[in-house]
Amino acid sequence: MNNPPFLQELTALLGERLSVNADVREAHGAGYSYHECMPPDVVVFPNTTEEVSGIVSICAKYGVPIVPFGAGTSIEGHVLALRGGICIDLRGMNQVLEVNKDDMYVLVQAGVRRNQLDELLEGTGFFFPIGPGVNATLGGMASTRASGTNAVRYGTMKDNVLALTAVLPDGKIIKTGSKAKKSSAGYDLTRLLVGAEGTLGVITELILKLHSEPETIYAAVCAFPTVEAAVATAIKTIQKGVPIAKIELLDAAMMRAINRYSSLDYEEVPTLFLEFHGAVAEVEGQIQKVEEYAHSFGAADFVWEKDEARRKRLWRARTDAAPSAMALRPGAKLMSTDVCVPISQLAKCIVDTQHDIEKTGIMAPILGHVGDGNFHLTILINPDDKEEFERAKALNERLVRRALAMGGTCTGEHGIGVGKLQYMALEHGDSLDMMRAIKHAIDPQNLMNPGKLLPEQ
Amino acid sequence: MNNPPFLQELTALLGERLSVNADVREAHGAGYSYHECMPPDVVVFPNTTEEVSGIVSICAKYGVPIVPFGAGTSIEGHVLALRGGICIDLRGMNQVLEVNKDDMYVLVQAGVRRNQLDELLEGTGFFFPIGPGVNATLGGMASTRASGTNAVRYGTMKDNVLALTAVLPDGKIIKTGSKAKKSSAGYDLTRLLVGAEGTLGVITELILKLHSEPETIYAAVCAFPTVEAAVATAIKTIQKGVPIAKIELLDAAMMRAINRYSSLDYEEVPTLFLEFHGAVAEVEGQIQKVEEYAHSFGAADFVWEKDEARRKRLWRARTDAAPSAMALRPGAKLMSTDVCVPISQLAKCIVDTQHDIEKTGIMAPILGHVGDGNFHLTILINPDDKEEFERAKALNERLVRRALAMGGTCTGEHGIGVGKLQYMALEHGDSLDMMRAIKHAIDPQNLMNPGKLLPEQ
Repeated sequence: MNNPPFLQELTALLGERLSVNADVREAHGAGYSYHECMPPDVVVFPNTTEEVSGIVSICAKYGVPIVPFGAGTSIEGHVLALRGGICIDLRGMNQVLEVNKDDMYVLVQAGVRRNQLDELLEGTGFFFPIGPGVNATLGGMASTRASGTNAVRYGTMKDNVLALTAVLPDGKIIKTGSKAKKSSAGYDLTRLLVGAEGTLGVITELILKLHSEPETIYAAVCAFPTVEAAVATAIKTIQKGVPIAKIELLDAAMMRAINRYSSLDYEEVPTLFLEFHGAVAEVEGQIQKVEEYAHSFGAADFVWEKDEARRKRLWRARTDAAPSAMALRPGAKLMSTDVCVPISQLAKCIVDTQHDIEKTGIMAPILGHVGDGNFHLTILINPDDKEEFERAKALNERLVRRALAMGGTCTGEHGIGVGKLQYMALEHGDSLDMMRAIKHAIDPQNLMNPGKLLPEQ
Repeated sequence: MNNPPFLQELTALLGERLSVNADVREAHGAGYSYHECMPPDVVVFPNTTEEVSGIVSICAKYGVPIVPFGAGTSIEGHVLALRGGICIDLRGMNQVLEVNKDDMYVLVQAGVRRNQLDELLEGTGFFFPIGPGVNATLGGMASTRASGTNAVRYGTMKDNVLALTAVLPDGKIIKTGSKAKKSSAGYDLTRLLVGAEGTLGVITELILKLHSEPETIYAAVCAFPTVEAAVATAIKTIQKGVPIAKIELLDAAMMRAINRYSSLDYEEVPTLFLEFHGAVAEVEGQIQKVEEYAHSFGAADFVWEKDEARRKRLWRARTDAAPSAMALRPGAKLMSTDVCVPISQLAKCIVDTQHDIEKTGIMAPILGHVGDGNFHLTILINPDDKEEFERAKALNERLVRRALAMGGTCTGEHGIGVGKLQYMALEHGDSLDMMRAIKHAIDPQNLMNPGKLLPEQ
């Protein structure tokens, strides 16, 4: 970047917390995505909302593009510096500013990571339910509207951000929402900024809802003869109003992957991993029902894991799904993708996709948050094989079109970034123009994470 | 309205479903609010989204203001035709278009009323949880982000609208969201239009989430020595994660009102009305806990109502709170207002408000959705006494300022309309400018319900 006055102003604000080092820039240019790295020109490391405001104001003055950066764990290319410019690395903003047990919220800076929050909350009697498969920052999770395994009971980031602080593209600091649990006072800016992928502003602080730790947690594993039988069990569980906390499907290929990676010996057939939260009597009642549904759909056994150590081992295996899948094909790169469909379409969508995977001749174990109708393909590709890469992309495209044709969405929790841009018009039709109008009104210079979420016209 | 070409075009579209009759206009100019009636110039009665689009296109062409109208039950003056123009009465759009049990949603036109939906769902095993105290339309409930007694467990309209169809100010029809339970695909336009009070477009259809009917419903009533004791019980219930379905506080004045109106003989002290949903064992476990908390805070008795008829009688008395309050002062008009505060501030906010009411010398029984920190004042005013009206308004203003000072919001579920306009800047600060930018981008002519939600600059 050849703009000395811009760099001078930034340096005056941040001192040494600014880097143009090639390695640092490289480390900020890709995230966990399969997309090619596109490093920013400068990386800055603010510690406060006011510093972010200062950085954004300077960028606005010089017309420099801005990419907000959390843990760099996004998988659809959200952090690629498509047009160069600066990357705002928010990991220095990692303070938990308030834990309010009475009102059951926590106030965090955007760079706090979910594992950090989990540890801090241990022993308080409260927990924060949203956990994607990686140790993301809470700001990043808000920006991509993340969810994870607990969403079926506790909702997504959309449901668990009470209020937030953001820096708008002109440098102005705003606070949205309030500490009250609900409000009818004006446009829901919180929900507009959650999921906006940094294209409307930089989220710098969040007030997150806490939930009471359940008295008891039981887990269970249940093997099924077919994907359809597993999904039918999930549907019945949801329809009957069982407040299940997690209901995760792993297909046979994914079970093979975790068996190998975690030295387990589960049957390598479609399997549900389940978790139940509540008072003992409640949880036992829930399990009894789900077990009955599972049997009615042909499940052979239903293994309870009441013991905490065994339960943690089970969920560790589930959490390690991505590395497990990758270990199936050493040296492979991961193209991770997700869609979400109405639950009635889920079994068909998964089975059709399995046939498609087979025909495509690519390894792509499947796992899903089936209570929500959301599932993932972990497509394993050889990064040096261009033909295979194209085949994988075509598989991904067919998956998305299949989900959209079933009334679903092109992504349940990963976000658009650049990876799903091409499906926005197909999914949203004319509402895309409304999104564009909002983007233009808030960011007329198109400096906030340009080229993401909204396709060029 | 002296604009023959405009009226000709409208008549060509709607035939007789258009009225300039003074009584019809008058009936559309106030809603249930204490604000003075401001009738529109024309009232139209479309039956389809396409007709609404046609109406809005004609209005856009002639620059005529538009007020969307549901059941006319809003209480903050949302339907006042401040600048004349046309009122779109959506009650002709009262078709339930699809009940999808597999995916647990219902597709309705915006003019469907909540009682109509309740009746239609009876016997299906599913229900829609959002119920304000009146028989509103679902479009109106979405537009004001309504909630009601079940919100503590099931959320508000924000949480229960899966997707919607709206007509934008240029006449374009858009569909937001999808039938999938969650999505990370772009800006959350559904949540932006929910609560926008018709200022960004006209909602014409809604896909609403259904919930499974609980196996068992028990209700209970519990009298407390003080408001603080009742609220402390509510707080503990929430903090301990008891998934209570309703937890309503009625103060002594409100208990007096419902005793008289419904010929009941409850103690006239602060009282919680409670409802529990779930399997029998779950519900009994929940009640046991809440009863224990109540006793620990000095409650004398805890009366269970397992019987459906008695339970319905209890909730009927609660639902009739507004007419009960009004019967305390025959001929009085109701100034209904609500605020929502962090739950830790709730007892103080209510008690301070009770002292204020006493000093003000006005009757204003209180009831609250205390699990959410939300409560209502039903202020009884003599419509002919201007001095008293001013005193009531000042009481309302002090209430709002008290709630805002406690980190709350000026309205938990009634909305802004014109009644709370003056508090928007105080509550939102600079984010009000972001709301204005969005409004201007979507409705540059300011034709959609002008003068509501956003104060003039």
